[in-house]
Amino acid sequence: MLRSVLRASTTRLGVTGSRFCSSAADKLVITEVDDKTGYATVTLNRPPVNSLNLELLTAISETLDDLQNNKSRGMILTSSSKSVFSAGLDIMEMYKPKVDRMKEFWSTLQDVWFKLYGSPFPTVAAINGHSPAGGCLLSLCCEYRVMCQNYTIGLNETRLGIVAPTWFMASMRNAMSRRDAEMALTLGTLFTTDEALKVGLVDEVATSKEDAIAKATAFLDKFKKISPQARSMTKQALRSKDIMELEDNRTQDIDLFVYAVTQPKVQKGLEMYLEALKAKSAK
Amino acid sequence: MLRSVLRASTTRLGVTGSRFCSSAADKLVITEVDDKTGYATVTLNRPPVNSLNLELLTAISETLDDLQNNKSRGMILTSSSKSVFSAGLDIMEMYKPKVDRMKEFWSTLQDVWFKLYGSPFPTVAAINGHSPAGGCLLSLCCEYRVMCQNYTIGLNETRLGIVAPTWFMASMRNAMSRRDAEMALTLGTLFTTDEALKVGLVDEVATSKEDAIAKATAFLDKFKKISPQARSMTKQALRSKDIMELEDNRTQDIDLFVYAVTQPKVQKGLEMYLEALKAKSAK
Amino acid sequence: MLRSVLRASTTRLGVTGSRFCSSAADKLVITEVDDKTGYATVTLNRPPVNSLNLELLTAISETLDDLQNNKSRGMILTSSSKSVFSAGLDIMEMYKPKVDRMKEFWSTLQDVWFKLYGSPFPTVAAINGHSPAGGCLLSLCCEYRVMCQNYTIGLNETRLGIVAPTWFMASMRNAMSRRDAEMALTLGTLFTTDEALKVGLVDEVATSKEDAIAKATAFLDKFKKISPQARSMTKQALRSKDIMELEDNRTQDIDLFVYAVTQPKVQKGLEMYLEALKAKSAK
Repeated sequence: MLRSVLRASTTRLGVTGSRFCSSAADKLVITEVDDKTGYATVTLNRPPVNSLNLELLTAISETLDDLQNNKSRGMILTSSSKSVFSAGLDIMEMYKPKVDRMKEFWSTLQDVWFKLYGSPFPTVAAINGHSPAGGCLLSLCCEYRVMCQNYTIGLNETRLGIVAPTWFMASMRNAMSRRDAEMALTLGTLFTTDEALKVGLVDEVATSKEDAIAKATAFLDKFKKISPQARSMTKQALRSKDIMELEDNRTQDIDLFVYAVTQPKVQKGLEMYLEALKAKSAK
Repeated sequence: MLRSVLRASTTRLGVTGSRFCSSAADKLVITEVDDKTGYATVTLNRPPVNSLNLELLTAISETLDDLQNNKSRGMILTSSSKSVFSAGLDIMEMYKPKVDRMKEFWSTLQDVWFKLYGSPFPTVAAINGHSPAGGCLLSLCCEYRVMCQNYTIGLNETRLGIVAPTWFMASMRNAMSRRDAEMALTLGTLFTTDEALKVGLVDEVATSKEDAIAKATAFLDKFKKISPQARSMTKQALRSKDIMELEDNRTQDIDLFVYAVTQPKVQKGLEMYLEALKAKSAK
Repeated sequence: MLRSVLRASTTRLGVTGSRFCSSAADKLVITEVDDKTGYATVTLNRPPVNSLNLELLTAISETLDDLQNNKSRGMILTSSSKSVFSAGLDIMEMYKPKVDRMKEFWSTLQDVWFKLYGSPFPTVAAINGHSPAGGCLLSLCCEYRVMCQNYTIGLNETRLGIVAPTWFMASMRNAMSRRDAEMALTLGTLFTTDEALKVGLVDEVATSKEDAIAKATAFLDKFKKISPQARSMTKQALRSKDIMELEDNRTQDIDLFVYAVTQPKVQKGLEMYLEALKAKSAK
C-alpha cells in the first residue's frame, strides 16, 4: 500500500544525489506517501529522541517544500522513536554556540514554523511519545493532534528557565483558550495525554501508534470532498495574523534568541541541565 | 398585540410610496413591531429559500436603517419559509455576473454586515430552518441564536469550493472558540442543531418557530433595565476591531470577491451546481 | 509565621515616615509578607466596602511598586471586609467632580491596572465578598481567582448606565471566552460564585476566607520551581497587546472618562443612585 520510502530528506551533511534512496534508516526524516490516499507520513528519525538540531530542522523544512511542490493531499507527522515524539530543540545548538550557526538554526526553525503552521495541505500530528517544548510546537503547527496514552506534552519552557517565543505562544493560543494557554505557558505545564485532551491541546487519544495513524488518516479523509485551494486559503486566512507577526519580526526574533541564549545565566543553566542528563544516563 | 405590519421594506424595484402597505405578502422583508415591547420581528420573505440577492439584501439594509433611526429596543430575525432560514447568497448573483451589479451586490452585503454586526439595538436570530453560508452569517451577526431542531447551519463555503471572506470568519470567531472555528471553516461543516449548540454556534434550541420567537423575546427582555446607550457602546467596542478591519478593506474586499467569482473554475463550479439543482428539482 | 505587617501603604494624606508602622488598622492597604514563602497578602482596608477612591488606588499602586521593587514571589489580594471584596470605583470621585482630581483618579486606576495586570510576580485574588465593576476588574488583573461562596462578581457597568473601558473588557476577555465576555459585558451580568466558576470568571470556589487564602497559596506554590524571570516575561508577552493598547491611548482614555462622567445624564444617574443608597441605609 505504501510506495516504500518515496522520499527521504537528505541531511545538510548528506551527499547530493542521495535524495531518493532505498534505505531510509539513516535519514533524519522519512517520508512515505500512500498511493491511494496521497497522504504523506513524515517520520522524524533522529534517534534517540528527535532533538531538533539544524540538520533535522533543515530536513523537515525540505520535506515540507517537497510536499507543497507536489500538492500533497495531507501530511501525518510522527516519530520513529518508541517513546518520544520529539524532545524539542537540541540543547547542543544552544550550549556554547557559534553565533552564525545559531542564527541559521533559529531561522530554520522559523522556516519550519512558517511552512507547517501555514501549510496549504492539511496536517495531523500522530504524537506517539513525549512531546515537550519544540516537540509540542511541531504538533501545535498541525491542524489536528492525535496522541498516544501515557505520554506528556506541553510548552514547558518556563520550567527550563527560558521564555517561549511569541509565535510558540500564538500556536498554543490557536488550539486552546487564552485562559488555559496563559496558565499552561506561565506554569510550563507538561500535560498527560488525558489532561491535554481536556484542555484541547490534543484532539483525540490513541491506543497505539497504528491507532494514531488510523485516526490521523480519518481526519485527513474528512477533506476528501473539499476543494484543496479553498481549504488552504481558509486556513491561511485564519492563521495569517500570527504568520504576519513573525514575518514582520524575523530578524528581531533571531537577535532576541541569540541574546537570550548567550546570557551567562542561561549558559550556566544549560550546563547544569546537561550534567544532570549525563548523570542520569550514567546510572 | 402586534401593530400589524408596521413597516415592510420595499425592494429596490418597488414603487416609492408603497412603503407602508397593509399587504406584506409580496415584500422581501416583513417588519412587525410589538407595541408593548417595542421589539421588531424581521421576517425574511423571498420564497422559496430566502436566497440573498441584491434586492433582498437592500431590503434588509433599509430595514436595519429604519430600526436604528427609530431607536429600536431589539430585533428578532426569522424566516417566512417552513424549512429554510436563508439558503445564503443567491448564486444567480455570481453566475455569469455583470461586474457593476456584482459590486453593488457585495457592497450591500457589507452594508448589511456593518449594520447588523454593529447594530446599537440587541439582535437575535430565530433560526427556523436550514442556515448555510450567508444564512449562517446573518445569524452570526446577531447577538444570540435560537435554532429549531433538525436543521443544519454553518459556514460551508469550502464545500462549495469557495473561501469565506475574513469578516465571515471573524463573525464566527466571535461566537465560537478559535479552535472550533478553524475546524468548522476549513471543513465547511454544516452542524445539526444539537451539534451547533455544543460548539456554541447557537445558544438555545427551540421546538418550533413560536418557541424560537418566545426564547428570542426572553433574551431581549434581559436588556429591559439596561441603558440602551451603554449597552450599544459596549457591544460596538467589543466588535470594533472586526468592524474596522472590514472598513479599512472594503474596496479590496469587493475586488477580491469579483476576482474570485469570475475565475473560470468557479464559474464552471457554479454551472455544475446549478445543473445539479435543476436535475434535483426536476425529480 | 507572618512578619506582622511588614509594610502598610500610606495614604496620600498620610504622614511620611509612617510607612512602617505597627498598627495597620488605619491603613488603606495592609501588606503582610510570609517569611517562609515570600508571598505578600495585600488586604484592601477601606471600610465599609473598599470603594476605590484616589487614596485607596494610590495606596494599591504604591504597594505594587514595593512588591515589584522587592522582587516579590507572589501576591494574594483580598479584603478586610466580611462581605465585600471591593464595591468598585468610588462614586464620590465621579459625582460633581473636580476635573483635576478626576484625571488623577483615572490615571491612578490606569497605573494600578498596568502594574497589576502586567506584574512580574504571580497574583491571585482571594475574593472574600461581592466584587462588582472595579472590584471585579482588580480580580481580573490577577492570574487566578478563588472566590468564597454566595457572593456576586461581574463587570456590571451597563446596569449602571455606563460603559466599561476597553481595558476592563480586555481583562475579562483574557479570562473568559469572547462569547461569554460579550454576553456578560452587554448584560452587565453579576454572576454568583457558582456561575462565575462555570464561565471561567473565577478558577476555584472556597468555603471561607482562610480556605481562599490557602487555595491562593497553593496556586502560588505551583511556581516554586519556575524561573521568576522566565515566568514574568511569558506573562507579559501574553498580555502585551492589551497593555500596549492602553499605553497608546492613556490620554484619550482619561479624556473619554472625564467626558462621559460629566454628562448631565450621567450626573443625574449618579445622583439618583446616591439617593437610593441613602434611602436604603436610612431604613
